Amino acid sequence: MRTIDLNADLGEGFGPWTMGDDAAMLSLVTSANVACGGHASDPETMFRTLEMARDRRVVVGAHPSYPDMAGFGRRRLIAPPEEITRFVAAQVGSLVAIGALAGHRVRYVKPHGALANVAAVERDVADAIARSVQAIDPQLGILAIAGTQLELATRALGMTVYREIYADRGYTAAGLLVPRDQPGAIIHDPAEATDRLLRFLETGAMLTVDGGQVPLQADSICVHGDNPSAVDMARSIRTALSEHGIAITSFVQDA
Amino acid sequence: MRTIDLNADLGEGFGPWTMGDDAAMLSLVTSANVACGGHASDPETMFRTLEMARDRRVVVGAHPSYPDMAGFGRRRLIAPPEEITRFVAAQVGSLVAIGALAGHRVRYVKPHGALANVAAVERDVADAIARSVQAIDPQLGILAIAGTQLELATRALGMTVYREIYADRGYTAAGLLVPRDQPGAIIHDPAEATDRLLRFLETGAMLTVDGGQVPLQADSICVHGDNPSAVDMARSIRTALSEHGIAITSFVQDA
Amino acid sequence: MRTIDLNADLGEGFGPWTMGDDAAMLSLVTSANVACGGHASDPETMFRTLEMARDRRVVVGAHPSYPDMAGFGRRRLIAPPEEITRFVAAQVGSLVAIGALAGHRVRYVKPHGALANVAAVERDVADAIARSVQAIDPQLGILAIAGTQLELATRALGMTVYREIYADRGYTAAGLLVPRDQPGAIIHDPAEATDRLLRFLETGAMLTVDGGQVPLQADSICVHGDNPSAVDMARSIRTALSEHGIAITSFVQDA
Amino acid sequence: MRTIDLNADLGEGFGPWTMGDDAAMLSLVTSANVACGGHASDPETMFRTLEMARDRRVVVGAHPSYPDMAGFGRRRLIAPPEEITRFVAAQVGSLVAIGALAGHRVRYVKPHGALANVAAVERDVADAIARSVQAIDPQLGILAIAGTQLELATRALGMTVYREIYADRGYTAAGLLVPRDQPGAIIHDPAEATDRLLRFLETGAMLTVDGGQVPLQADSICVHGDNPSAVDMARSIRTALSEHGIAITSFVQDA
Repeated sequence: MRTIDLNADLGEGFGPWTMGDDAAMLSLVTSANVACGGHASDPETMFRTLEMARDRRVVVGAHPSYPDMAGFGRRRLIAPPEEITRFVAAQVGSLVAIGALAGHRVRYVKPHGALANVAAVERDVADAIARSVQAIDPQLGILAIAGTQLELATRALGMTVYREIYADRGYTAAGLLVPRDQPGAIIHDPAEATDRLLRFLETGAMLTVDGGQVPLQADSICVHGDNPSAVDMARSIRTALSEHGIAITSFVQDA
Repeated sequence: MRTIDLNADLGEGFGPWTMGDDAAMLSLVTSANVACGGHASDPETMFRTLEMARDRRVVVGAHPSYPDMAGFGRRRLIAPPEEITRFVAAQVGSLVAIGALAGHRVRYVKPHGALANVAAVERDVADAIARSVQAIDPQLGILAIAGTQLELATRALGMTVYREIYADRGYTAAGLLVPRDQPGAIIHDPAEATDRLLRFLETGAMLTVDGGQVPLQADSICVHGDNPSAVDMARSIRTALSEHGIAITSFVQDA
Repeated sequence: MRTIDLNADLGEGFGPWTMGDDAAMLSLVTSANVACGGHASDPETMFRTLEMARDRRVVVGAHPSYPDMAGFGRRRLIAPPEEITRFVAAQVGSLVAIGALAGHRVRYVKPHGALANVAAVERDVADAIARSVQAIDPQLGILAIAGTQLELATRALGMTVYREIYADRGYTAAGLLVPRDQPGAIIHDPAEATDRLLRFLETGAMLTVDGGQVPLQADSICVHGDNPSAVDMARSIRTALSEHGIAITSFVQDA
Repeated sequence: MRTIDLNADLGEGFGPWTMGDDAAMLSLVTSANVACGGHASDPETMFRTLEMARDRRVVVGAHPSYPDMAGFGRRRLIAPPEEITRFVAAQVGSLVAIGALAGHRVRYVKPHGALANVAAVERDVADAIARSVQAIDPQLGILAIAGTQLELATRALGMTVYREIYADRGYTAAGLLVPRDQPGAIIHDPAEATDRLLRFLETGAMLTVDGGQVPLQADSICVHGDNPSAVDMARSIRTALSEHGIAITSFVQDA
C-alpha cells in the first residue's frame, strides 16, 4: 500500500494574534511545521501548538525563518551564511526546548518563506541551515522541496532528508515551483489540486505549467498555502487519497 | 587546598550595543552566566560570547530573564508560573543550541534580575524554573543564591544546585542580600569586598550589615555588579584568593 | 434630537496578523480608537486603518498602551508616571504623523487596556497621560470612562474630555465598571446590551449589577469588547438607536 | 565672518545600552541627529537626549532608519517607497511628540545608515522621505549629503535642504563619498581631517581620493563616524575652526 505524509505550516500566531485554524489542520495533517519565533510565534504559542500536535499524534518540525515578524519572514534579509547558522540554531533550539516541556519531541526542520526560497537555490545558505541543524541534533531530519540545493546540502552531511511537493503550486518542466509572480504559480481549486496529486502518486510524474510532466520524488505533500481555503484543501486531499487507497502517515518512521 | 568558583553575568550586549568588558572578565572568572535573549543578547552576541568562553575554557550557564529588553529584566512582569516555564525554556533552548554550534556546551542555568529575585522568595516561581530546566536536560545544574527558594526547588527535583554568594553585596543577619534600596546593599570598595570574602572563606561566616556574622555555604562567588569597576573588582578578588592559597576553579566537576 | 457617538478599538493587527473586522466596524461606528504601536499595530497597519477611517468619515483617536505586544497591553508594567508620559507621547506622535500622511487628522486619545484601568483610579497616571497629550497638541481631546481619575485629570488641565459608557459591561452602584473577574462584568447578549443603553439614553441612569440604577453622563458608547460578536453588537445597537430617534454622530464638533 | 554647523548622530542607545559619549558630543556640535526608534533608541532615551540637547542649546533633528535594531539600520531592507513614507513618519512623529514633551522642538530630518545611502542615489526613495517629512510638518528641513538625490527631492518639494559634508570620509572626483569598502573611505587622523576641512572652507573645494579636488557646498560638517575617537575628532575640528575665525553655529536661522 502506498503511503504519503501531509505537512502544513502551523503555530503561526503571535501573542494575542492567531493565523489559520490550527486545530482543524492538526486533525488533517501528519506533520506540522511549527513557527519558532522568526516569522511568527512566541513561547506561549509554541507550547500551545506542540500540546495540540502531541494530543493529535501529529509529528512536529521546527520552521525557522529570517528574523522578521513584521514581514512574516517573506523578505530576504542581508545575512551572511554564518549568521544564518546562528539564528536558525536559536529558533530551532527554542522549539526543541519547548517540545521537551510539552512532552512532544521536534523531529525535523523545514525553513520558512524567503529563507526556504534562498536555500532552494543557493548552496551556501542551504549548507548553513543543514550545518546548524546537525550541530543541534544529528538525528533531526530536514524537510526540503525535492530537487533543491537544500536537499543536496542535507545529503552531503549524511543527514536524513524528507522531500516535499506542493499540492497547490504549479511546477516548471525542470521540476521546480513556478515563482509566485508568474501565471500558473498557485492552484486555487481544491479539485484540480487533488487530481494533480493523485496522478502524480500513480505515475511518479507531476503535470507542468507548460502542459508536460516531470518525474518527482516525494515523502510529503505540503498543503500550506496563502490560500484562504487551507482547511478545505487539506480535507479534500485527505479524502481523495484515502479513497484511492493511499495511506496518510508521517515520514518519520518511529513517530 | 580550598577551591571556589568565580561567576559573572556576561554576553549582555544586543545587536550593535555592548555592555561591560567581556573579554577581560572571561580571563578572570571560571563561570559565565550568558544572556539568552530575555533581558539582552541575540543569536550573534550569544555565539560570540560562547566562542570567547570556549577559547578561555570558561564554563557557561544560561541566564534567562523576564522577556524585557527595554527594562533589562529588572522589572517583574505579570506572568503565571506556567508561562515562566515556557519563556525560560525558549531562552535556555536558544543558548543550548548555539552552544552546540560553538562547540561549547551549556552546563547550568542561573536566572537573571527580577526573575532571580522572585525565584529567591516565591516557591512556585522557583519550581517553574527548575521544572523547565529539568525538562530541557536533567544534567543541567542551577546556580542559586544560597538559602533561597530556588535552591530548595532545585534540590526537590533531584537536580544539581550550585550556591553562590556576592562579593559586592551586603548581607542581613538571616543570610540574605540586603535589598538594593537599603543602606549597606552594595560594597563599592574592591579592598573591602575582598577582605569580606577572605574572612568568609576562612571562617564559613559572612559579615552582616548589622555588624554580626552569618554562616553561609558557597560553591561560587558572583562578581557581577552594577558596579562600574567590575573588572577591577574581579581582578582584585582573584589576586587575593590566589595569594591566600585558594584555587579558582569551576564548580562543574568534569568541565 | 438626541445624539450619541459610537466608538470602538480598531487597527489592532500587527504585521501579517489581523484582529476583528475593521472594515465592518468602520461602517458602524463614528469614532475609531486606533492602536499605535503599544499593544498592537505598526506603521503599515496604522496607515491602512487611517485610510479606511478617512474614506468612511470616521473620526480617529490614538489608543496608546503599556508597550507590551505579547501581552496585548492587558498587563500593568512597572513604569513611573514620567516614563508613561514618554511612551504615550511616542505612540501618539507616531499616529499623529501617519494621520498627516493619510490626510486624516487624529482628534483625541483614549488609553488602552491596563493603562486605561490604572488611569481610571490612579491620579498620577491619569495626570501623566493628560500632560503628555497636552504637550503634543492641546487641541486633542481625551476619551475617558465617565467618572474616572482620567476625566478629572483632563479637566484639571483645561483640556476637552469626552465621556464614554460601555454597552457590554456591567456597572456598580458607584457608576464604575464591574471588574472583569466578577459576576455581571460582561453583557454577552446584544439585545440586553441594547435595552440597557436605550433605557440609559432615555433616563440618564444606567442599570447596576445590584438591581438599582446610577446616573451617568456620556458622549459616546464604547462597543469594543473581547466579545466575539463585536460586529453584531455594534449593528444591533446602531439599529436600535436609529429606531428610537437617536442620531449617531461624532463627539468632535467640527469633524 | 564664515560660519558652519557641526552635526553628529546622537541618542543611539537603547534601553540599558549606550553608544558613544552624548554629553561630550553635545558640548561640541550645534546640531544633533537623534535616533527615533528605527535603528536605535526608545522613548526614555529620546527624551533624555532631547533634554540634554535643550539644556546645551543644540538644535535637534530626527534620524529615521530602516526598522532594524539588531542591524543598527546598516542593512537595506526590502520595502517599497510607500512603506518607507510610513515608517519614516512613525519614527519622526515619535520624536516630534517627545520633543514637545521635552520643550525642545525637532527642526529637521536626516536619514540614517542604509536608508541614507539608498536615498542618496535612488530618487523614488528620496522622494518618499521628503514627502513623508513634508506631510508631518512642511517647516521641517532635511539634512542631506550635498549632491545627492535626497537634496534634489527635497528641493523639488519646495522644502528647506541643509547640505552636509563629512570630516572623516574620503571624496571621489564626482563629489561623492568613497564607499566604505574602498581605500581612502575613512580618514582616521583628526589632524588630517581638520586640514582637509580648513582647506575646503577656504577654497570651497574638497580634496579627492585621486589627488584632485572637487567644488562642494556645505551648511554643516558631519563629525559622526564609526570612529572610536569621535569626541577627539569633534574637539579637534571645533578648535581648528575657531582658530581660523570660522564660527560654529546652527544652520537653522531662528534656532
